[in-house]
Amino acid sequence: MSRNEHLPHALQQILSAIHTRILVPDPTLLAEARNHLDSLTKPLGSLGSLEDMAAQLFSIRGGDLSRPLRKAVYVFAADHGITEEGVSAYPSEVTRQMVLNFICGGAAINVLARLQHAAVHIVDVGVAGDFAGCAGVLHRKVRSGSRNMLREAAMNWDELTLAIETGLELAEDASRCGYNMVAPGEMGIGNTTSASALTAALTGSPAHRVTGHGTGVSSETYANKVRVIAAVLKKHLSETVDPLSPADLLRRFGGLEIAAMTGFVLGSSALGCAIIIDGFISTAAAAFAVALAPATRSFLFAGHLSEEPGHRILLDHLGLAPVLQLNMRLGEGTGAVLAMPILEAAQHLYREMATFASAGVSKGNA
Amino acid sequence: MSRNEHLPHALQQILSAIHTRILVPDPTLLAEARNHLDSLTKPLGSLGSLEDMAAQLFSIRGGDLSRPLRKAVYVFAADHGITEEGVSAYPSEVTRQMVLNFICGGAAINVLARLQHAAVHIVDVGVAGDFAGCAGVLHRKVRSGSRNMLREAAMNWDELTLAIETGLELAEDASRCGYNMVAPGEMGIGNTTSASALTAALTGSPAHRVTGHGTGVSSETYANKVRVIAAVLKKHLSETVDPLSPADLLRRFGGLEIAAMTGFVLGSSALGCAIIIDGFISTAAAAFAVALAPATRSFLFAGHLSEEPGHRILLDHLGLAPVLQLNMRLGEGTGAVLAMPILEAAQHLYREMATFASAGVSKGNA
Repeated sequence: MSRNEHLPHALQQILSAIHTRILVPDPTLLAEARNHLDSLTKPLGSLGSLEDMAAQLFSIRGGDLSRPLRKAVYVFAADHGITEEGVSAYPSEVTRQMVLNFICGGAAINVLARLQHAAVHIVDVGVAGDFAGCAGVLHRKVRSGSRNMLREAAMNWDELTLAIETGLELAEDASRCGYNMVAPGEMGIGNTTSASALTAALTGSPAHRVTGHGTGVSSETYANKVRVIAAVLKKHLSETVDPLSPADLLRRFGGLEIAAMTGFVLGSSALGCAIIIDGFISTAAAAFAVALAPATRSFLFAGHLSEEPGHRILLDHLGLAPVLQLNMRLGEGTGAVLAMPILEAAQHLYREMATFASAGVSKGNA
Repeated sequence: MSRNEHLPHALQQILSAIHTRILVPDPTLLAEARNHLDSLTKPLGSLGSLEDMAAQLFSIRGGDLSRPLRKAVYVFAADHGITEEGVSAYPSEVTRQMVLNFICGGAAINVLARLQHAAVHIVDVGVAGDFAGCAGVLHRKVRSGSRNMLREAAMNWDELTLAIETGLELAEDASRCGYNMVAPGEMGIGNTTSASALTAALTGSPAHRVTGHGTGVSSETYANKVRVIAAVLKKHLSETVDPLSPADLLRRFGGLEIAAMTGFVLGSSALGCAIIIDGFISTAAAAFAVALAPATRSFLFAGHLSEEPGHRILLDHLGLAPVLQLNMRLGEGTGAVLAMPILEAAQHLYREMATFASAGVSKGNA
């Protein structure tokens, strides 16, 4: 945490406390899981990645896979000042309109969560519009949209701290509700631009390699988006000689929903909860959680590989293999929730398959 | 069907009849599905492959996705004479032992099918062992294992005809039970060798490119397996000057379970049922169904991409993109059943998502 020493005291306290609470699961549990998997009635290793998933789940859950999965997706919504620069195919007000769509159950994430019996929680952490009196939204607005990061930091320190705290509190809330598998999802017009800047700053990749077409910008808007991201990076990274701390990068480039998801991933890891990350935006949030507290990595599953080019860079940076590869680029947590039945299958195979001994099946010479 | 003209009369009759009954779905339904998908509250095309799946399902189901999916896997089991040549890591009796494991519900396919609410039907179409008095097995044994294809054709014409008819009848049975999504699965020690020979003969690929490690053979056994497959191909393909018909290739190289799955795929296509194929073996069966009746292709979904190198060759040959890529190599129908929740998700998204108009969400300029 040496790079956090110049952070404001309140944030430093929060990050130190959560860092201490996130513990890498006992590594002997992984070996125990492998032994059990090798005793099941199938050729050695023939369940492929499902065996990796089962072993990781087994270690996260402290060696007990008997309890069924209880699943939830928390969709963090916020607007982005950078949309002033014409980086998105959709107007900013779509963030608010889509939140209303979530509340009415008409969005893709609602459909998928219903099918997977996952609860959906919608969090307004920074939407420019108002949801006064709106049931079905968790009202945690830090600010009506982040600032334009081409001109100034997207958040000041207090705003960043509050956004991270919001995520931490919702992780506690999820744990109290009994969820043992959570997904951070998001909605925020302009947030691929934010994720691209964060990815470039974290991994050292140039702007054009981490920039994609987002929700589907034209080639002209795309060229502008790359220019804007390069200019944003230049402005902030040239302000100091020393490298900026992860927290400061998150403050300068992050959306409010991204900072909240970083807090949510940190908090869920501290509570020993399995976390399925979704696409480019939520993976950017998770990558910053890992930068702030590396033990977080043990609790992460990558739900899918999105079409955004920066997503592959982040997954490689984190050393995560995606469960699904379906050329999706929607966000909301959709790729994470879609991966839930695959992880659930891994758990059930682990628990319910017969062993060679119990089924009287001959072992091969493989 | 010109290449079928030298087939025995009974088989020729059966194949002509089924060929006539398999009708490519109305292509205007695909366009209708695309229009509907573009009206839903998501960026254009952002659900990636899920949109392709939904459109294909919509066309297969005649433009009506209102009925829920009713899912079943039919696991066809048989032994292979070629195991005499030492091509497998497991002894032949494992086929029978695994069928007993299926009946007791302890195999991977049982666990996955329970989780996905898919029915499991076990078909003995050619296991060397006996299941007399065994409830839970469909007794359709054509022969106690195929013949050793290094010495003679794996089946005679009557056996091939009976195996294909078995598959056709079980497709009728599935339709009567109300299933609208079926998966052909298999169990048969030695059947990757059979699938490799079939793939080489169908696609013109050399033996070493279509041969994998099956259930996990050592490098020594692997080298022998490649030699055996090359010798099998040489023996049969040099017997005539004219190219062999697909049916004759299936007879010479196919296992009884593979021929039955070919019949099952043909029959299910004729009944307008969506078919999810599994790994290398069931895809080989499906590739022969398509060779016999090309319209079959419209009804196929590829559940996953297996670790067997010949599987990718077959999927490319068929022009199918796999739903999942999880490095599995188990068979039984496991990859197909694991893909079912993804296809189900595609159907639900199609039916349940709000449109831009109904939700009052602004359309972008994408």
